[in-house]
Amino acid sequence: MALHSMRKARERWSFIRALHKGSAAAPALQKDSKKRVFSGIQPTGILHLGNYLGAIESWVRLQDEYDSVLYSIVDLHSITVPQDPAVLRQSILDMTAVLLACGINPEKSILFQQSQVSEHTQLSWILSCMVRLPRLQHLHQWKVHTRSCWGGSSPAHGTSSGSSTRFQQEVWGVLSSARVHSQYVCVGVFNLASMKKVKSLRDPSAKMSKSDPDKLATVRITDSPEEIVQKFRKAVTDFTSEVTYDPAGRAGVSNIVAVHAAVTGLSVEEVVRRSAGMNTARYKLAVADAVIEKFAPIKREIEKLKLDKDHLEKVLQIGSAKAKELAYTVCQEVKKLVGFL
Amino acid sequence: MALHSMRKARERWSFIRALHKGSAAAPALQKDSKKRVFSGIQPTGILHLGNYLGAIESWVRLQDEYDSVLYSIVDLHSITVPQDPAVLRQSILDMTAVLLACGINPEKSILFQQSQVSEHTQLSWILSCMVRLPRLQHLHQWKVHTRSCWGGSSPAHGTSSGSSTRFQQEVWGVLSSARVHSQYVCVGVFNLASMKKVKSLRDPSAKMSKSDPDKLATVRITDSPEEIVQKFRKAVTDFTSEVTYDPAGRAGVSNIVAVHAAVTGLSVEEVVRRSAGMNTARYKLAVADAVIEKFAPIKREIEKLKLDKDHLEKVLQIGSAKAKELAYTVCQEVKKLVGFL
Repeated sequence: MALHSMRKARERWSFIRALHKGSAAAPALQKDSKKRVFSGIQPTGILHLGNYLGAIESWVRLQDEYDSVLYSIVDLHSITVPQDPAVLRQSILDMTAVLLACGINPEKSILFQQSQVSEHTQLSWILSCMVRLPRLQHLHQWKVHTRSCWGGSSPAHGTSSGSSTRFQQEVWGVLSSARVHSQYVCVGVFNLASMKKVKSLRDPSAKMSKSDPDKLATVRITDSPEEIVQKFRKAVTDFTSEVTYDPAGRAGVSNIVAVHAAVTGLSVEEVVRRSAGMNTARYKLAVADAVIEKFAPIKREIEKLKLDKDHLEKVLQIGSAKAKELAYTVCQEVKKLVGFL
Repeated sequence: MALHSMRKARERWSFIRALHKGSAAAPALQKDSKKRVFSGIQPTGILHLGNYLGAIESWVRLQDEYDSVLYSIVDLHSITVPQDPAVLRQSILDMTAVLLACGINPEKSILFQQSQVSEHTQLSWILSCMVRLPRLQHLHQWKVHTRSCWGGSSPAHGTSSGSSTRFQQEVWGVLSSARVHSQYVCVGVFNLASMKKVKSLRDPSAKMSKSDPDKLATVRITDSPEEIVQKFRKAVTDFTSEVTYDPAGRAGVSNIVAVHAAVTGLSVEEVVRRSAGMNTARYKLAVADAVIEKFAPIKREIEKLKLDKDHLEKVLQIGSAKAKELAYTVCQEVKKLVGFL
């Protein structure tokens, strides 16, 4: 029986490999040898500094580095926890506005709403049937997803919050893995080499998170200048006045230095050099100013975009139609490999 | 926390109810007050006498009793166990031929291939998010599906065969439940009041099953007349020569009487009356003849239909397009209720 199961597992995995390589019996899944970028973010929750520096800035850059780039607002994932329909609808449009304001350009990438591409859900089912749980649990994406973050936002938190079931965690992971398999390459936020990890302003041992109960811990992209100043002023540092970069020894100050470098585009060494003679209290205000300056045009653009709901809906419709076209082709080829067509 | 979870569960169930009733905020799911019939059968395995009398005959009859009738060849379910793609493809077309030959009429009902309607898979995901596992486990469909049969064929057998995971059993049940929720009424084979339960010819305490290891236990619709005669000749009865109908006391003979009544369309009393003076050995041959006679035109039609692969594919394409149209409308309305649109 064990041998029998192993043989079956092997059969399934040669199928998965066939999906990747294209089998002799079926056309190759992708003729273009160029890589495809695919990532997603949940619509719920306001983007914060950690998401922005850790993910969205990379998303913007990747648009110029790859020919085929897809970014998904993963609304199907967000309903693994209860949502108010009206609030969810607004959140989807708000997240669209935020991403556009941050520099996601629908001319360069496909920005789409996950639920508008039913082929992805179907691919997820088909692939889940090809994968045994023990094998799935060894996948990198699965491990990362079930314990930490997705798209800078935190679905794993959602699925383990007690209001969700093991069942959905499993399906959720497979849905994510499906994206990996359904495309040649999936550059998830979780495996971006250059991803910056911004820490909580109140506890530099923890990641900055939208769900931090301490409101002062997290700087949101939509915070007012006054709120940003207050949060940096109250940021936990230490009793040394000087500004230095020493993540192991001085996590608090180093986090602020890293944020400063990231928002100004300067190196860590350069921002430390420029802060010579400044005490940490004054330095925190200088970094707050740099963050305010960085976010100001984005905030203005978000407000402008939010006024034009029709435009936001149209962007998602066009993006979803493009994503659907790509997914349909992949889905048909997978169905041929499975024997449905 | 328990109270919190209960409140969330209630929220979700009022949502499910809203899906059924149509909420004030969203259009009603279905304006037509007439009921809709929805059922499915797996493409794998050859139809046997039990499926035919227990399910397919009812499917044929329901076509004339309801305005909206959908029958699905549930290929997405069949891949929860390993399938050879070429064999699966052939099985889908063969099952189409069998159903048409049995009297499923694409002018009266929508005969479609499950995998061609990606909206159903997506509805399944959305609804699975609205349902908590403990609640799901109380659903009638769930219980029936996870322990017995679907569409006369036996997917639960497949999913519990050791090569599949608990994960897929769960998803499978939800996929099935989704059909219930996505349509106003789902008349699954399992809850047809008139369903006839044909027993194994070798063990009248067990249901006739395609996976019975005893080849003589199950009469397939494609069996040759010689095979059918042999199976009835070897059918387990008892040491009483007379033909009577007494399911509790004489399960073997009574099963044969029931089959006889079903294939001739006569009442049990009438077939017993007509067998007066016949011993069970001769009676078994008479019933075998009646079964051969019943299946003969169906077998001829199956062979004829199998020769025209293009026709079979076209039937499925047209049916799937119709099912997709219905599902798209339901899916859009569900998405509005959830907040995706």
